[in-house]
Amino acid sequence: MTGPSGLRSVEEHAAAVAALLAPAPAVRLPLARCLDRVLAEDLVAAIDLPPFANSAMDGYAVRAADLAALPATLPVSQDIPAGRTDTAPLRAGTAARIMTGAPVPDGADTVVPVERTDAGVDRVRIDAAPAPGVHVRRVGEDVTAGTVVLRAGTVVRAAQIGVAAALGNAELAVRRPLRVLLLSTGTELVEPGRPLGPGQIYESNAAMLAAAVTEAGGVATVAHFVTDDVDRFRAALDRALDLPHGDGPAGDDGPVDLVVTSGGVSAGAYEVVKDALTGAGVEFAKVAMQPGMPQGAGTLAAPGGRRVPVVTLPGNPVSSYVSFEVFLRPAVRAALGHPDVTRPVVRVPLSTGLDSPPGKRQFRRGQLDAVTGTVAPWGGPGSHLLGWLAGADAMIVVPPAVTRLEAGDDVEVWLLG
Amino acid sequence: MTGPSGLRSVEEHAAAVAALLAPAPAVRLPLARCLDRVLAEDLVAAIDLPPFANSAMDGYAVRAADLAALPATLPVSQDIPAGRTDTAPLRAGTAARIMTGAPVPDGADTVVPVERTDAGVDRVRIDAAPAPGVHVRRVGEDVTAGTVVLRAGTVVRAAQIGVAAALGNAELAVRRPLRVLLLSTGTELVEPGRPLGPGQIYESNAAMLAAAVTEAGGVATVAHFVTDDVDRFRAALDRALDLPHGDGPAGDDGPVDLVVTSGGVSAGAYEVVKDALTGAGVEFAKVAMQPGMPQGAGTLAAPGGRRVPVVTLPGNPVSSYVSFEVFLRPAVRAALGHPDVTRPVVRVPLSTGLDSPPGKRQFRRGQLDAVTGTVAPWGGPGSHLLGWLAGADAMIVVPPAVTRLEAGDDVEVWLLG
Repeated sequence: MTGPSGLRSVEEHAAAVAALLAPAPAVRLPLARCLDRVLAEDLVAAIDLPPFANSAMDGYAVRAADLAALPATLPVSQDIPAGRTDTAPLRAGTAARIMTGAPVPDGADTVVPVERTDAGVDRVRIDAAPAPGVHVRRVGEDVTAGTVVLRAGTVVRAAQIGVAAALGNAELAVRRPLRVLLLSTGTELVEPGRPLGPGQIYESNAAMLAAAVTEAGGVATVAHFVTDDVDRFRAALDRALDLPHGDGPAGDDGPVDLVVTSGGVSAGAYEVVKDALTGAGVEFAKVAMQPGMPQGAGTLAAPGGRRVPVVTLPGNPVSSYVSFEVFLRPAVRAALGHPDVTRPVVRVPLSTGLDSPPGKRQFRRGQLDAVTGTVAPWGGPGSHLLGWLAGADAMIVVPPAVTRLEAGDDVEVWLLG
Repeated sequence: MTGPSGLRSVEEHAAAVAALLAPAPAVRLPLARCLDRVLAEDLVAAIDLPPFANSAMDGYAVRAADLAALPATLPVSQDIPAGRTDTAPLRAGTAARIMTGAPVPDGADTVVPVERTDAGVDRVRIDAAPAPGVHVRRVGEDVTAGTVVLRAGTVVRAAQIGVAAALGNAELAVRRPLRVLLLSTGTELVEPGRPLGPGQIYESNAAMLAAAVTEAGGVATVAHFVTDDVDRFRAALDRALDLPHGDGPAGDDGPVDLVVTSGGVSAGAYEVVKDALTGAGVEFAKVAMQPGMPQGAGTLAAPGGRRVPVVTLPGNPVSSYVSFEVFLRPAVRAALGHPDVTRPVVRVPLSTGLDSPPGKRQFRRGQLDAVTGTVAPWGGPGSHLLGWLAGADAMIVVPPAVTRLEAGDDVEVWLLG
């Protein structure tokens, strides 16, 4: 809610942003494209693992009864490599030469490792009698058919891909990454790699936010930035929303799920995003935070009438970054069903004091010191200090009611990882 | 070195694997492809940040001398939006209307926020006199041209992409991801998604290892798996090494840097990898570990005579996974110059006891309990327990000399993340 200062609280704006995003739909993707995605459904085992009783050792499958006296010499009645699909039952009084992973023949209850034999091919001398079952992997001993192996909401990594494949799955149902369209505004912006004129700066927000979207689990498309001109802004937006959305790492094209703009939302005379979207479904507010006070969130009409969620971030690079961390990263991860919606949070002592504006939550860049277990403010509060941001590994969060913290005071710290 | 048991130590084999991989060469990639890559060179700022003195606020640029008496009313002599490239010096006795990020005109030493004025367009009434410089961002105040902004070895994330773009860089010199060719062997293997016959299992190692390679920072290509036939294995390998290497996420095609096989290296009668590569530049050894005892490492001659590093992993899925974690992940990350070569390591108490074989380092899958701060062995030691592996978040490491640990004993734990 809006406090006595006339500012909207961080929590209120975060809730407004989160409410814009529907849960990402499930999509079936080949295993190779599932890494780091979130499972959309429980994975139920269609088969047992192992699917058949098999040998845990290279050796000989025998009946325990035939090893009553040791050493025992038995004729080798069959040879069972892994992959043998026509294994016959074991005849009493014989041994089957068997390899790791190969099916244990019916009738055999014991596997003798090759190291406890003379490794014979036609006949084998056996010097030890292992307990029955010791070197046999039983059907379903790892996974029983019909059981849930991976829960919905699990992040898919190498081991999860491994077990899914071992159970016969060529694809998995995962949350489709959100498709995010990024559009930066500002007449002063120049594309990196080109010459910079007086009064101009390089456009950095779109590339930075695209990386942040990817890290959050989304797929970003960057629209070419536009000058502070309402008609051009709106035309660029419509053009980008009308186009088939670009090929993301997940390859699943489709309409944009979310538009994120940067710049043009402040109190100045040329605020292109605010001017274009006020009254069109986007609410602009001052949020009680530093940096990142000017914010907007809502929906806009795409060509064809579909309403698309839009979040308008301030243009100062550090404000953009902090706003993404505070509002968009948690909202995107919640929509993806990710188990880790927020950054890891710790409380550690400050190594030096800091000042914070009254009535605003301050987000200061910090650097952790693993030796002393403290955090240092990294650069000043200025929202243009991108060089300092790039050297930070933490975000220090100062509550609105606090205006001064001293060295040694505990603070909330987000680990940027 | 080889111990009294005749087994090679984990350290010795790890060193042999690491020695195979040369440092990954540097490559210049567009910013959008640099996320999570490692910087190959220091990034030196080509320009100052900010590149020109600019306003931190929407307001009016004035000379402090003109605010001697308050309120002061001054004619507005120019309007300076962000992006204005032809800003004239400020005439004495006038104010320039200025927006955040716009160049502060020569002659002005003070910016008055619009909130402390009547926001006039032709004339402006100013009610406060901020200290000179307070709302002015000075040239180079964030980054000075010629200084190192990001050190070689830095992992590139959103903020690093942001500052690189802000300094005008359209691309960065990063370590090229290692190109890893994966080849699974085993007559018993069937592709996931197809019907499974008796004695057959689904191939899972290649998909699992491809994900592990990606997580380590490499790019994997999976060759179709082959049966336990030496000629077919060698032909498949030559074919894969001769082909132009597939399109990885980094898009930089080229020859394979490393071949990783799984299966066919044990003591059985049908060990295709061992049979094909023994005497051809690959050394096979038994390593004092459980699981993962049979290992191989060396080089093989690719078509054309180039020698390609090859690491041969055992075929049991958990053995493959553990071997990758122990030998390949650190080697790949070291070759990439990654600051985090090993997994994070902690020592925590066991929640239940476990047995470990004498003379071998045991790697047991574990699950951490955040509430009690303990780790539980997750499933037994069997190298076929892939379902249990997929539920683990930690690896418990038991030294070779230890054969029994009780609940409450501290153990080394790798956090699998």
